[in-house]
Formats: sequence, C-alpha cells, structure tokens
Amino acid sequence: MIGNDRIIKFCHDNLVIDYLGVDVVERDGAIVLELTVDERHVNLYNICHGGVLTTMADTAMGAECLRLGKKVVTMSLTIEFMHAVSFATKIFTRARVLHNGRKTMTCECEMLDAAGKLYAKVHAIFFVIETLEE
Amino acid sequence: MIGNDRIIKFCHDNLVIDYLGVDVVERDGAIVLELTVDERHVNLYNICHGGVLTTMADTAMGAECLRLGKKVVTMSLTIEFMHAVSFATKIFTRARVLHNGRKTMTCECEMLDAAGKLYAKVHAIFFVIETLEE
Amino acid sequence: MIGNDRIIKFCHDNLVIDYLGVDVVERDGAIVLELTVDERHVNLYNICHGGVLTTMADTAMGAECLRLGKKVVTMSLTIEFMHAVSFATKIFTRARVLHNGRKTMTCECEMLDAAGKLYAKVHAIFFVIETLEE
Amino acid sequence: MIGNDRIIKFCHDNLVIDYLGVDVVERDGAIVLELTVDERHVNLYNICHGGVLTTMADTAMGAECLRLGKKVVTMSLTIEFMHAVSFATKIFTRARVLHNGRKTMTCECEMLDAAGKLYAKVHAIFFVIETLEE
Repeated sequence: MIGNDRIIKFCHDNLVIDYLGVDVVERDGAIVLELTVDERHVNLYNICHGGVLTTMADTAMGAECLRLGKKVVTMSLTIEFMHAVSFATKIFTRARVLHNGRKTMTCECEMLDAAGKLYAKVHAIFFVIETLEE
Repeated sequence: MIGNDRIIKFCHDNLVIDYLGVDVVERDGAIVLELTVDERHVNLYNICHGGVLTTMADTAMGAECLRLGKKVVTMSLTIEFMHAVSFATKIFTRARVLHNGRKTMTCECEMLDAAGKLYAKVHAIFFVIETLEE
Repeated sequence: MIGNDRIIKFCHDNLVIDYLGVDVVERDGAIVLELTVDERHVNLYNICHGGVLTTMADTAMGAECLRLGKKVVTMSLTIEFMHAVSFATKIFTRARVLHNGRKTMTCECEMLDAAGKLYAKVHAIFFVIETLEE
Repeated sequence: MIGNDRIIKFCHDNLVIDYLGVDVVERDGAIVLELTVDERHVNLYNICHGGVLTTMADTAMGAECLRLGKKVVTMSLTIEFMHAVSFATKIFTRARVLHNGRKTMTCECEMLDAAGKLYAKVHAIFFVIETLEE
C-alpha cells in the first residue's frame, strides 16, 4: 500500500487539477478531491461543466489505483449525471477499486456534496503501465 | 438550423472552455473545438488529461444539438481513449448527432489531430431542456 | 412500492428471460435474477456470453424501477467485465436505483456468485414511460 | 486477414447466437449478424430486449477483431438505444474496429434495419488474448 502523502503528490502531478483549483485532502484515511464551483468551472447554465467532474473523478480513481501500487492510464470512462452541481456548491469524490487485475483495473467514483447527495457516478477501466515497489 | 455565430457564442458561454484555452473555430461550415496541449492540461505523464478531452467533446456535442435548435444537458457520457495526446499536440473535435429525439438526443464525437489520427471517441445522451425558435 | 409478486411477473413478461433459462427469485426481500451457465449461454471460450449477463442486469434494474412504480425503457447501458463466468457457474444480480427522477432513472447492477465474487458491474439510464398507481 | 468462412464459424462458436436464432451472413464482403425479432427476443413491451441487441453487437465486434487476427474478450461495452426494435423487425449489425492495439482493441457497432434506420450504437474495448497466424 502506498502512503497518502505520495498519493496526494501524485494527484497534484496532474497539473490540470491545480489549475482548476481542485483541493486534494485526506479525510478519514481516504484521499478526497474536492472543489467549490466557481467561474472557472461553469457551463452556460452556470452549473459545473461535466468535464470538470470527469477530470476530478478520473484523477481520484487513478489515485486509488496508485494506493494499490499501480500506475495506470485510463482506457474508458463512463459518467452518469443525476443532478446539476450549482455555482458555489462544494463537491467531492469517493473513489474505489472494484477489480485489481494484473493488467487492467476497474474503478468507480461517486461525486457527492457534504449532505451525501449523489450528483454523478463514474466508472472506468484502467490499463496498468507500472507496478510499484512499496 | 441555428447559425454558426450563435453556436460559437454558445461554446464560449461555457466559461471553462475559455479558461482551458480551447479555441472554437468554423471549418468547412462545421464548428470545431481545438486545443494545443500545454501545462494547464497535462497529467503526471505529461499527456493531456482525459478530463480535458471530455470537456471539449461534451461541449462540441452540445453545440451540434444547438445547431438543431435544442438546448440540452448531458445525462451520460462515455469516452474511450485510444492514444495518449502528447504535450504540444493540437487536437480537435468532430461531433455529430446520431439521434435527434424530442426529449433526448444521442451524439458522438471524435478527437483527432491534423493527420486524422483518432485519439479518443466519445458518445453521450443529452436531455432536451428547451427547443429554440430559429 | 410495488410488491414482489408483481415484480416477478414483470420479469417473466420479458420472454427472453424465460427463454434463456434465467430464474427470478425473492431473497431477503429483494428480487434476484439468477442463472447457471449452460450450453445456451456460452461463447467460443465456453464462458458466459456478455450479452446474456447484460440481459439479466438490464431486466433486474428495470425491476427495481418498477418497485418504485415506474415503467421504463433503457436509454443507455454500460457493462464492465472483471472475470469470466465459467460454464456451470451460478451467477445472480444485485440491482439498485441510484437516482429516481421524474423523467429518467439511473441504476446499477452487480453480477455476483454465491461467494460474493464480482464478475461484472452494469450502469444504465432509463426513461420513464409510465408512473403506476400503487 | 482472416477469411470470412473462418469468421462465420467463429460467430457460430458463440452458441448463444444460434440459440437466439441470429443469422450470420456475408454481404458485400462484410460479416453481418441479423435477426428477425420473434417471441424469443422480446421484453414486456413486445420489443426486442436490449440484451439481445448487445449479444449481437458484441459478437459482431469480436468477429471484426478476428478478421485482423486477434482473439479477444470484452472488457467494457456501452450501448445507446435510439429506437425500439418492434416485433418482426429485421435488424442487422455493422461493426468496425476503431483502434487495433497490440494488447487492446476498440470497436463500434451500429444496429440498423434495411432502410438504414439506426436503432442502437455500441462501443466496446476488448482485451487481446491471442494473435493468430494467418
């Protein structure tokens, strides 16, 4: 298992995460990406663009793969949107690994607010490009 | 049919598009979103983050719905990544509507470079929230 | 809430379910579709064809929508396969509704064996065509 | 390139295809799976169950991978339904390979009727388990 310090650094190595103003924090031992929606993130309806949520989820799932010692690239990703994320809403990720294969991994990620409301759910398959020594 | 000027304005109303440095241009009558990958867009492997490509594709498909007079929100989106988009690569969208329903629309979008290489393919279902007078 | 007897009848109204030899049972109050893989279901590797699993999952999710009083049709469905389901394996569904919207619903379904091993996960968006009186 | 005789045999080695009454034919040099919807295939609305269409599409895409000398298993598959396929409708597949990678392949498949109406579109990622000598 890779430590949280290293996972947080990994998330920030995705420069787009910092550029979009996404925070990466540890909460109850888990790594969480969170974002308060502002002018940078919205579409024409003044709600968070789905691509921003996808960026967060993709990174959060990659972080969970890293926790298990796998460096991965995304092969496919599906996102289902259930509610619009309004301007000024604070949203965060909850990602987990469903299948930790030798060559591929399957993950999912929920996008939630502090009240536990589910805004979107994401599923993805990753290709393992490197297995790390711990 | 909605004119290209209005579609281009629509794309820019998605503020994240400008924020990410995505250009919106007309080419052979079609609206194309294009991006040259730089520091803002990359992941830890110095390639374009999949979330950025998703943001471009989602917007390009929404633009094609608008062309047919429909304002839409994304319900689900799937992206399949075939090749990494390296730093400094110029990539653009080619989106089209597969199904123009009264309540929902289905679209797809290819992510290509100037040589016609296909980097990713995206499919999405949209919910129609408003039908425009032309 | 619609009762389990009515939901079980609904499942069998999907004639393909019976034709494929899928059982529909109540277990701990939930409706479960289960199948023991035989000659009818296999692909050339003698494992269960992914389309059969998709058929089961799609029906199981529709049944959960019905439980909430909604008749639905599938708009999009994604399945991720994690392990092959071998000949003679008994596999069953565990479906739930993630989002119960007025016009659309989002569901997911796991495909498991008795030991709790996860073989595939399915996610889908449904369009509500009728809301039932209870 | 693998010949059409061998590809047709491959399709029939998926026993579920025969069991469901799907025909495998050569048309204009391409391999096409086709089905006339009958009692075996319908759901409670008397339209073809989405799982049956998924089974056809998955097999048709696997056949196109075989054409390029690759034996594959499906990793993920997404299907978007645009129109219901009514009882007695004859529907067929049009599959192609989008990305022919060494370890993975990406394919898509359209589900059409003789008039060219598009009922569903399918996309999938396959894992290459064997590369054939031609």
